[in-house]
Amino acid sequence: MSYIVQKFGGTSVATLDLIKKAALRIKAEVEAGHSVVAVVSAMAGTTNTLVNYVRDLSTTYDRAEYDAVVSTGEQITAGLLALALQSLGIPARSWQGWQLPIQTSSHHSHAHIQEIQTHRLTEAAKKGLVSVVAGFQGVNADGRITTLGRGGSDTTAVALAAALQAERCDIFTDVDGIYTADPRYVSAAGKLNQIAYQDMLELASQGAKVLQRDSVELAMKHGVRLRVLSSLSETPGTLVTGEHELQTTRRQVSGLAHSLNHVKLTLCALPASVSLNNMTAPLRENHIALDMMHETLSLQGECRDVSFIVSAADAERTIAVLRDSKDKLHFQDVLTDSDIAKISVIGPCFQTDHSPHRKLFQTLKEKGIAVQAVASSDIKLSVLIAASEMKRAVSHLHTVYQLDAEEC
Amino acid sequence: MSYIVQKFGGTSVATLDLIKKAALRIKAEVEAGHSVVAVVSAMAGTTNTLVNYVRDLSTTYDRAEYDAVVSTGEQITAGLLALALQSLGIPARSWQGWQLPIQTSSHHSHAHIQEIQTHRLTEAAKKGLVSVVAGFQGVNADGRITTLGRGGSDTTAVALAAALQAERCDIFTDVDGIYTADPRYVSAAGKLNQIAYQDMLELASQGAKVLQRDSVELAMKHGVRLRVLSSLSETPGTLVTGEHELQTTRRQVSGLAHSLNHVKLTLCALPASVSLNNMTAPLRENHIALDMMHETLSLQGECRDVSFIVSAADAERTIAVLRDSKDKLHFQDVLTDSDIAKISVIGPCFQTDHSPHRKLFQTLKEKGIAVQAVASSDIKLSVLIAASEMKRAVSHLHTVYQLDAEEC
Repeated sequence: MSYIVQKFGGTSVATLDLIKKAALRIKAEVEAGHSVVAVVSAMAGTTNTLVNYVRDLSTTYDRAEYDAVVSTGEQITAGLLALALQSLGIPARSWQGWQLPIQTSSHHSHAHIQEIQTHRLTEAAKKGLVSVVAGFQGVNADGRITTLGRGGSDTTAVALAAALQAERCDIFTDVDGIYTADPRYVSAAGKLNQIAYQDMLELASQGAKVLQRDSVELAMKHGVRLRVLSSLSETPGTLVTGEHELQTTRRQVSGLAHSLNHVKLTLCALPASVSLNNMTAPLRENHIALDMMHETLSLQGECRDVSFIVSAADAERTIAVLRDSKDKLHFQDVLTDSDIAKISVIGPCFQTDHSPHRKLFQTLKEKGIAVQAVASSDIKLSVLIAASEMKRAVSHLHTVYQLDAEEC
Repeated sequence: MSYIVQKFGGTSVATLDLIKKAALRIKAEVEAGHSVVAVVSAMAGTTNTLVNYVRDLSTTYDRAEYDAVVSTGEQITAGLLALALQSLGIPARSWQGWQLPIQTSSHHSHAHIQEIQTHRLTEAAKKGLVSVVAGFQGVNADGRITTLGRGGSDTTAVALAAALQAERCDIFTDVDGIYTADPRYVSAAGKLNQIAYQDMLELASQGAKVLQRDSVELAMKHGVRLRVLSSLSETPGTLVTGEHELQTTRRQVSGLAHSLNHVKLTLCALPASVSLNNMTAPLRENHIALDMMHETLSLQGECRDVSFIVSAADAERTIAVLRDSKDKLHFQDVLTDSDIAKISVIGPCFQTDHSPHRKLFQTLKEKGIAVQAVASSDIKLSVLIAASEMKRAVSHLHTVYQLDAEEC
């Protein structure tokens, strides 16, 4: 049997009318001879309402109860989409995570999928039923409901597609594909018809919000072909797949990503005797991820300023952890700068081809945009600049890297 | 261990503030040394929203999916009440029907509880945890979520109290107990401190809406002591229990019930050759319950008018079934009269003591209130009168039966 997994995000099932539209999408695949397994998010807004209930009751809430409450959003949508399919004459039924089961770790509110039992889904498919699976949720070894954290429904969909060896995993969302840059900032940004897993992974890591990094990584690991497309238009979207399937050779630069969602912290006058490894130890212990670290040597050479960025959500906690470690680290002060943007250039061959590096620094210099820090890997170049310069920088780089095409 | 089951209805958990108040009620019992198992309904309004979603998608909806969607209301409240308890320093956790499990039949949307496993609840109690169980829901043999139908959370609470051999089952609702008559119609109505199961059963059957008949029946069967009380006041409520525990002897009349929620149908000119048994057969086949049947003989003696009442919700369907049977039944027409009220007098000994009958008819005659039909049993007398006369009739009868006391 040839399976297709179709995942509908919160904005794609936000109303009953949209749920009916999703059912029509599924119907088309069923009529084309496929066995469809649908995965749904909560109707847009529902999860926020439930999260606010929990937070209003308790600031240090029990994450097991949070999961029991918040997972209901997906349960509701799953039942409603099954009903909408039945109304179209398509036999269908809903499944909760615990009913399959989707077995997860016990890390409530950010659990990891450990195993998916698919035999109930394959039996249902043999009977001609479309299965609608509640995304984002699973069950742990104690039989308690868990949730997978942000982007969890994408992860459910990709994991199901892998387990079912599905032909394709469609991710329906509110944009019609992956773009060379964020169209809100770069008017010349073009939709990619296809992109390699590696490039998508870097785009997702560097701030492109359409797909979560974890689900791209999972898709790459299992060779799940992803198609990102809009539930509101009939355009074909973007195929995320392995290099062997790409119809064109990968270009020097696949796309640009950017993020305004970071804060730069600077530890002032950190003694030379404190290594960067010692400095970052308390942050690692608290599972705080830092990036773009750079040092500014002082004239005396006995101490220096160390700067790095953390996600805005972690900023307050990071400062608290650093202040608690002041006795060990002996720095003078922590400065905060939230007026920063991180821009990343993604491409396949930065290790062998250094011209993208040159173009990056030359362009920013010509346009008078100051680079605060730099980081690079085989397939990624990142720079830190002032937030106010972000739009200008991304637009110019988009042109310089010849991404201003109609479609790529 | 001495268990108390406390059930909070939809209006008692309608907001986060009310959920916190419910948690305080539970805390008081915990501090008094009891093991508490709480049962919750959905927050008032939630179930209606979910039911409307389902009905908007499909008129002939799949009841299995209806159950999956609608049961989420109780799941949310259970998690939130557990969180509210934790905030008060009371260890607590929520349970879904499938997690205990509460095993039910497969009659989706009106399933019956078959078995409740209590070992997880008793283990939790031994650890000092308050268990909060989602009411109204269970799981069938196929592992699908079921719901118990109207008043289902009361049934969950009573069934749990029976299984745990609980000392008491508190039903928190928006009224402060069982009254001798509906206080909205009879200003002299008094709250009963106690009432026997049998009398409560008749009151519930005859239209008193505080408790559903099924849960009273279950409580009587298992000897579960019920206490009906308001979540908003500190008054002690009404104890529903066996006769052996009643502190006063049962009075001649325990209370009055009434219902405006019926429609009277009259089959005109039904031939004498059609028996009442034949006439009612098509209604029985369609599971339509009828009551208060009476005949009016015509002068000719060859045909008669037959009247009866059905619940207003069944009226349209009943008329359709009768019209479909017109070829067999040979009546001339069906008349509808929704301007009717049914009044029931409930008491312990109508079989041996006929004075309540006399008082009933004498009072209505004196007040000029026409009786359209009569029905009686060992512990119940019912009359059908015009809806407009209901309030007056109930008030006078309340006085005649000496129910106008402060408290009973």
